[in-house]
Amino acid sequence: MGFLHQGHLSLIKQARLENDFVVLSIFINPTQFGPKEDFKKYPRNLKGDLSLAKINGVDIFFNPSVNEMYKNDFQTSVCAGELASKLCGLSRPEHFDGVCTVVAKLFNITNPDVAYFGQKDYQQALIIKKMITDLNFNIKLKVMPIIRETDGLAMSSRNKHLSTTDRQKALVISQALKAASLEFKKGCTETAELKKIIKKLISGEKYVNIDYIEILDAGSLQRVKYIKKKVVVAVAVKIKTTRLIDNVILKP
Amino acid sequence: MGFLHQGHLSLIKQARLENDFVVLSIFINPTQFGPKEDFKKYPRNLKGDLSLAKINGVDIFFNPSVNEMYKNDFQTSVCAGELASKLCGLSRPEHFDGVCTVVAKLFNITNPDVAYFGQKDYQQALIIKKMITDLNFNIKLKVMPIIRETDGLAMSSRNKHLSTTDRQKALVISQALKAASLEFKKGCTETAELKKIIKKLISGEKYVNIDYIEILDAGSLQRVKYIKKKVVVAVAVKIKTTRLIDNVILKP
Repeated sequence: MGFLHQGHLSLIKQARLENDFVVLSIFINPTQFGPKEDFKKYPRNLKGDLSLAKINGVDIFFNPSVNEMYKNDFQTSVCAGELASKLCGLSRPEHFDGVCTVVAKLFNITNPDVAYFGQKDYQQALIIKKMITDLNFNIKLKVMPIIRETDGLAMSSRNKHLSTTDRQKALVISQALKAASLEFKKGCTETAELKKIIKKLISGEKYVNIDYIEILDAGSLQRVKYIKKKVVVAVAVKIKTTRLIDNVILKP
Repeated sequence: MGFLHQGHLSLIKQARLENDFVVLSIFINPTQFGPKEDFKKYPRNLKGDLSLAKINGVDIFFNPSVNEMYKNDFQTSVCAGELASKLCGLSRPEHFDGVCTVVAKLFNITNPDVAYFGQKDYQQALIIKKMITDLNFNIKLKVMPIIRETDGLAMSSRNKHLSTTDRQKALVISQALKAASLEFKKGCTETAELKKIIKKLISGEKYVNIDYIEILDAGSLQRVKYIKKKVVVAVAVKIKTTRLIDNVILKP
């Protein structure tokens, strides 16, 4: 969706490294925003994006208009299943259908061999992977690690909306995830215990409102009581009107 | 879905004529049948189909199993829109989502340049055409004319279920469509009038239960009062447990 940061650039760089031809799509997709969400004020910087694309060796910069992507009588959609009913799907009920539909379109338009997504949107990557399998797209999905600012904040276009004070508050998210990871490394595998640590830290920061703190099986997104296989520790918060997500993978 | 008849063969022959390579898929798709519909007793004749495919120069005969197409945790679907809310969509609410999903899968698996569908399933062809446009499949859809028995009955795998007496009764469908076409050619463009003619004829045949008689804009499937552009005259009936559909296109 553009307003490119180092997270996006890590995808472009990896694509450039592994392929003959790199297509970058920049499309702020209205159908994945709810009626009260931030479609209109989502950060945009097309000139900057184009320049970064050029510098990083993108071959095609694909930036369609909304009218081009959704003609007047547009009506077919791709509907995500079970995986979309958890985490962000709860507070954003239509979000993942919008994502699947636009990604299916972008896949058919650009016809990629490999598609690169970021781990910050962990659930999104998982749902797209499921769509690729279920609908038999002949595409390999690569999920690249979260890129963080030096102070730990996960890079996101939406960080731009944070005031200096709020940006400071937002650090609690990655700090809480780090604290839980450390506790896990020390031997704690009980998810209730780890969630408590995260909750305590984030709740301690005024004006950071928790949407969810979850520790789920990394493949099925089912809740687990004890960490016996790979899990994702996922957090969503709202600071004023800015919604931020972050996650970390834990492997026993 | 197999149990090939001359209608299917007309598609294969056309594909053979216009392309280097012909793939025929035979898959009775469970997800497009309702819980009370005829999935289990849908006519099957795989040996006969294979032999007809060979004779007609099919290069690949693709006959996956249900388990192969729908793995345990299958969950992504393609959902048809407005066009699916009319005609057969009313009595078969999930049908077209099932069709779109399996056709999207078959498209991605076989990767065709051209796909051939029959006009007998007019609404299906229209919905697939919309899916191709909306989801940007790079595929050309060709809709081939209805093939009829010499007495006028539209060919359908389901005709096999009709007893000799019921098959005789079923002739009223094409006869009624023909009568309406004649009346249109004589100058009647009022759809209510034409529908009355069809209804009167079909109602005269005992045990032929009308599901719908509609005259709709051929592109949008919107109801029209007077025929000013191309319309589809579509009929669905049930004879005992066998559901039959037929249609005719009228152009002013």
